[in-house]
Amino acid sequence: MKWRCNYCGFEGDASRTYYWRCPRCSSPLSLDYPVECEFSSSNVVWERYSGFTPFKPSKWRGEGLTPLVSEKTSGHTLLFKLDYLNPGGSFKDRGTALSIAYAYMLGYKKTLVDTSGNTGISVALYSKLYGLEPTIVMPKTAPVGKKKAVLKLGGRLVEAESRTAATQIVEEYIGEPGVYYVGHLWSPLYIIGHATIAYEVYEDYGVPDYVILPIGSGGLLLGVVYSFEKLRECGFMEKTPRIIGVQGYSCQPVYRALYGVEEKGEDSTLADGVMVYNPPRAGEVAGKIREHGGDVVLVGNTEISRAHSELWQMGFLVEPTSAIVYAAYWRIREKIPSNSSILMVLTGSGLKTLL
Amino acid sequence: MKWRCNYCGFEGDASRTYYWRCPRCSSPLSLDYPVECEFSSSNVVWERYSGFTPFKPSKWRGEGLTPLVSEKTSGHTLLFKLDYLNPGGSFKDRGTALSIAYAYMLGYKKTLVDTSGNTGISVALYSKLYGLEPTIVMPKTAPVGKKKAVLKLGGRLVEAESRTAATQIVEEYIGEPGVYYVGHLWSPLYIIGHATIAYEVYEDYGVPDYVILPIGSGGLLLGVVYSFEKLRECGFMEKTPRIIGVQGYSCQPVYRALYGVEEKGEDSTLADGVMVYNPPRAGEVAGKIREHGGDVVLVGNTEISRAHSELWQMGFLVEPTSAIVYAAYWRIREKIPSNSSILMVLTGSGLKTLL
Repeated sequence: MKWRCNYCGFEGDASRTYYWRCPRCSSPLSLDYPVECEFSSSNVVWERYSGFTPFKPSKWRGEGLTPLVSEKTSGHTLLFKLDYLNPGGSFKDRGTALSIAYAYMLGYKKTLVDTSGNTGISVALYSKLYGLEPTIVMPKTAPVGKKKAVLKLGGRLVEAESRTAATQIVEEYIGEPGVYYVGHLWSPLYIIGHATIAYEVYEDYGVPDYVILPIGSGGLLLGVVYSFEKLRECGFMEKTPRIIGVQGYSCQPVYRALYGVEEKGEDSTLADGVMVYNPPRAGEVAGKIREHGGDVVLVGNTEISRAHSELWQMGFLVEPTSAIVYAAYWRIREKIPSNSSILMVLTGSGLKTLL
Repeated sequence: MKWRCNYCGFEGDASRTYYWRCPRCSSPLSLDYPVECEFSSSNVVWERYSGFTPFKPSKWRGEGLTPLVSEKTSGHTLLFKLDYLNPGGSFKDRGTALSIAYAYMLGYKKTLVDTSGNTGISVALYSKLYGLEPTIVMPKTAPVGKKKAVLKLGGRLVEAESRTAATQIVEEYIGEPGVYYVGHLWSPLYIIGHATIAYEVYEDYGVPDYVILPIGSGGLLLGVVYSFEKLRECGFMEKTPRIIGVQGYSCQPVYRALYGVEEKGEDSTLADGVMVYNPPRAGEVAGKIREHGGDVVLVGNTEISRAHSELWQMGFLVEPTSAIVYAAYWRIREKIPSNSSILMVLTGSGLKTLL
């Protein structure tokens, strides 16, 4: 497997050296590896889709193969992917499992991450699993349940004034010997890990007409697009779904990358999990949305709150951030043709944000 | 399908009338129905094991088919069944899904349950899913996260002075027209629902040598025994596992039913989820343990707390109650022969008890 920079052309041997970004031009990197167009029947996600990942993590904690629940309503088939039922309570476990397995393969002893919350739980979980020491830098304002979870997992928790300050803090430690900076906003391992969501959907249902996804770093969206593209290259499907990304009015960098402007609207502070102000792959995300005939929908607190309540009463115990996809569905549902199928990925457990 | 009382011989048509206990002698009932010895390949638990249940619930929220994680250690293969990754955060969803689907089939409009917590979340979730109105009676002392979850799900929450007082409160409402008393301590639908755990383990791994299970009402233990017995009757296996039940020193009714005495030991108040003082099936549970060459192990707060921390650092984000099985494993591990496989069912999510 090989690191590749699509911006400056840099290449590096990924089986020997880790780069969290291009060492030459500081852009996000890609990872090249041979793909085999085959699924196995294993119930372990990394066995089942090993043809689509660069390596198989040596440990597994139950991540992946989450339920896909179908609901017919108002002329549409809604497909809810219950990715909040991952072991760390969010979809991030898919990317983290791959990323930390890689850190372990390369002999790192410590892990480091700046995060709005869910990635912190996930990195603490998988780091301890591989015997690595995790340091998690989170904004003070992160839900207290997420902080407590990191501590119970045995992670070192550092609280920063803000999400941006968290990034500034980790920059001091990046490059210390033996420290693996997870860099989930940058890492192609997260994209490749999250991609397993769509292989599962393909096996359970087929190809949906639309996919609605939250955009924080954009890694989930890039992962889902990546896998649909791979499935198409493998000849498993002809057309990819339309990709709808969702951001909140309070933080709309991908909307800006797509349209060149920002829209005014109600605050979206309830969706703390997608408050990533400068996602390094914003341009790439906007490009993929354009390529797949998609769009970015913006939502605010009132509709997030309503969608969140509705999801709970439908039996989906998600956190407020996860409700933005359902809020977006209500925004655009009249524009979606009858009999369409719409996949919504529900990303984070609401059990940790109850109080 | 037919209700049957193994104590007085009562029989009743279960497709028409619900009894939460025997209307003649007040004992717990059994449910008779034809079993077909076949699994399907569906990813929906009720489709996959429809041969082993009396009917198929018309709705599904992602319950069942939870991960089985294997860990080699000190001469044993530990098999952790991650049943806390069910949609309501506990294994109870398996029984509740079946029970509430049945209430809906029979035309009930309201559901009622007394519970230490997890069943309340579960009953609220599935009742709303079928459009029924849930009333959940919980002791004041239940974890605040469990109470908040019931309210967010749209359940009516009634707080009682104690678990026993909760039962007294529901007894006033049982028998009101249109009210379905879930009676999970009594209901064979919970046993049959929980039984799906072992079909899954059988498919993922085979037959473990030992199974360690928490005992609250004993419904989980009876369910797991029920399914291993069915698998044996179907000719899928020859011998059933040894069944180890776990209770806390503070509440040991099944230990008493088995040995006629109680043991003195440290309080076990951390395991609030198994504090069921008069489980109606205590004698039946003790009988099954005896029949399957098993035992009851008692544990206290110090070892529960240690086991709980260890499980989190192993990546299993469970609630304290769920840790009693791992505490019990440490108690008895030297008596378990080398190369044995030991299944531990991890029952409830720790994300709702973080604060």
